[in-house]
Amino acid sequence: MATVSLINYEDASPEVRAVFDAIKHTRNIPDVNNFWKALANHPETLRRTWETLAEIMKPGALDPLTKELIYVAVSVANNCDYCIHSHTASARAKGMTEAQYSELLAVVGMASQTNALATAMKVPIDPKFLAEEQR
Amino acid sequence: MATVSLINYEDASPEVRAVFDAIKHTRNIPDVNNFWKALANHPETLRRTWETLAEIMKPGALDPLTKELIYVAVSVANNCDYCIHSHTASARAKGMTEAQYSELLAVVGMASQTNALATAMKVPIDPKFLAEEQR
Amino acid sequence: MATVSLINYEDASPEVRAVFDAIKHTRNIPDVNNFWKALANHPETLRRTWETLAEIMKPGALDPLTKELIYVAVSVANNCDYCIHSHTASARAKGMTEAQYSELLAVVGMASQTNALATAMKVPIDPKFLAEEQR
Amino acid sequence: MATVSLINYEDASPEVRAVFDAIKHTRNIPDVNNFWKALANHPETLRRTWETLAEIMKPGALDPLTKELIYVAVSVANNCDYCIHSHTASARAKGMTEAQYSELLAVVGMASQTNALATAMKVPIDPKFLAEEQR
Amino acid sequence: MATVSLINYEDASPEVRAVFDAIKHTRNIPDVNNFWKALANHPETLRRTWETLAEIMKPGALDPLTKELIYVAVSVANNCDYCIHSHTASARAKGMTEAQYSELLAVVGMASQTNALATAMKVPIDPKFLAEEQR
Amino acid sequence: MATVSLINYEDASPEVRAVFDAIKHTRNIPDVNNFWKALANHPETLRRTWETLAEIMKPGALDPLTKELIYVAVSVANNCDYCIHSHTASARAKGMTEAQYSELLAVVGMASQTNALATAMKVPIDPKFLAEEQR
Repeated sequence: MATVSLINYEDASPEVRAVFDAIKHTRNIPDVNNFWKALANHPETLRRTWETLAEIMKPGALDPLTKELIYVAVSVANNCDYCIHSHTASARAKGMTEAQYSELLAVVGMASQTNALATAMKVPIDPKFLAEEQR
Repeated sequence: MATVSLINYEDASPEVRAVFDAIKHTRNIPDVNNFWKALANHPETLRRTWETLAEIMKPGALDPLTKELIYVAVSVANNCDYCIHSHTASARAKGMTEAQYSELLAVVGMASQTNALATAMKVPIDPKFLAEEQR
Repeated sequence: MATVSLINYEDASPEVRAVFDAIKHTRNIPDVNNFWKALANHPETLRRTWETLAEIMKPGALDPLTKELIYVAVSVANNCDYCIHSHTASARAKGMTEAQYSELLAVVGMASQTNALATAMKVPIDPKFLAEEQR
Repeated sequence: MATVSLINYEDASPEVRAVFDAIKHTRNIPDVNNFWKALANHPETLRRTWETLAEIMKPGALDPLTKELIYVAVSVANNCDYCIHSHTASARAKGMTEAQYSELLAVVGMASQTNALATAMKVPIDPKFLAEEQR
Repeated sequence: MATVSLINYEDASPEVRAVFDAIKHTRNIPDVNNFWKALANHPETLRRTWETLAEIMKPGALDPLTKELIYVAVSVANNCDYCIHSHTASARAKGMTEAQYSELLAVVGMASQTNALATAMKVPIDPKFLAEEQR
Repeated sequence: MATVSLINYEDASPEVRAVFDAIKHTRNIPDVNNFWKALANHPETLRRTWETLAEIMKPGALDPLTKELIYVAVSVANNCDYCIHSHTASARAKGMTEAQYSELLAVVGMASQTNALATAMKVPIDPKFLAEEQR
């Protein structure tokens, strides 16, 4: 159960409805997900979050599926239940195959392991990494 | 400074040298990074980590650059200093452009924000996500 | 389901009952929350946790509501389900308005985003921050 | 050393300079912090981050100092070195006393401890918390 | 509900069955846990994870119970629901007493608190720690 | 550089000196570590932290070395630089061998990996774990 009420379209203010309409139109879906219904308690945060998300996730130097894979990876590392479910579903909707999902999980698991090992041993950063970064 | 000594090739056991040789050969580099020199204190972990990493990061359903972007994203979320530096450098070596890096950061930042919002409000998972997952 | 049994007042040892009584008296509530019933399996941890919490959360240089807002923020960042629910309820009980909650969430979300960006880019700390800290 | 070059005002594009000017004007400071100089590699992220941050941190239902305390708390929980330094300095600049800082740290430490305990024992959420949330 | 189907023995491929058999044989249990049934969607990850886990958790310089206590501690810090439940049960199966569990929780809670305090204050590392590490 | 001044014995108040003396006496060391000198800015937190730590880390159902290994594991998972250095040094001082350290790291790394995998797939908890927990 959420810490706030979920606000449905029929109970929403005009300001909230405008954002809901934009989400439904952009994604071509009949209703918005619970995340947006929860955010609707904070209309300003709702609007800002949607506008920023739409801007960031659109096709660019990275394609939408790659962005979605990255979103899933971060959501797993941050352990966000809702986001893992919603973005894994979203990645599949954007064409993620089970083979790709399998490799995504393998990379996330491996990174988590070497992150822990490098952190535990406080491995000093190789000078060449720093030089390359500052080209 | 590391919690262990860094073991250089000339001071390494034959078992460790064999792994170092494999890394240098696979990556076509003159010397291994500090991460491997630190892991060399634990030859079994060194060998297993290298073999698993090589297996996971090779081309597959996801291309090597996409895997590296995911690796950077997880390393940022897990806050591993060494891994952020080494995998950002590695992503650039595999062709990541600054425009791609810019979008990677934007997605990681945005995911971190919506992860926090969804977690804070304990948004209930939409039934349709669960249905889709169980196809 | 918890990894331990929840211990109710009627089944509790005198040592545990004494702490339960203190909690009920201080908070003017008829029964303690599940957190305390779970901790009651470890009477020493129960007593110490309660005494420290009571000491830390009492009015001081920061008022109780501000402390509660900080508690919610940390619980979100640490992703503690139970703590998010209990401290959000507690903040509301101490007078948190929905407008304040909305702004709390916005700050937590924004901090999570800039935390990720600064961590990803390994931004060097401005010398002036260090100087100011050591006044 | 950062993973990107820090961009100074004199080397910045007009788009970046406009944001730098807005930051300097709003905060009445002679130069922007390193965080913004790093973000300037991604002008769109720079602009969006500044505009959102300015909007969120302005006085509202919560005063600026309370918001800053929450920012520090989240930055500590997320372990962001840069953000801990910059927002602790910022909180002091906004009037945080050492007594307030002391209590902030005590709450953050205590929350981290009870977060871990509740998470470890998987304490079931009290029904009354859920009822209160849905009023 | 999982993001993947759980694969039972009767529906598993020969490759997956071989790993399931190894797990059942090693642990002397009639069926594998859900974690393995979920991983079975990725046979290569299943095999590698099992082989590595079996290698790491076997008796060595640390006894199996100590390793399990460490596993629980990390799972709590990483907030993995499934792992907290499965490894707490596993620790009990390996002989963890309630008194030991109580002390494990107390150490995990205390470490979480001092971790937060040291991180918040950015305490500089004592030179003697570094010297000792490099003996 | 710390966000607070480090307070040395000669500059400390009688209240702080009393805690410093207790630490030095208990640990038989000539001076306290930087963590305590930083905490000394908050005498009440200093006293409480020391008393709780001393109580928790003393021999009990778990021996001091096992407790220290758990402390290192949590500090790695929480990514606390200072704590990783200080508790790794402390574990060595209490007799941790390099072989034990090697196995500790392997378990921490493995747990981090399976934590991520179980979290990513949202593996449902086996009913038997829950039953066992409630004996």
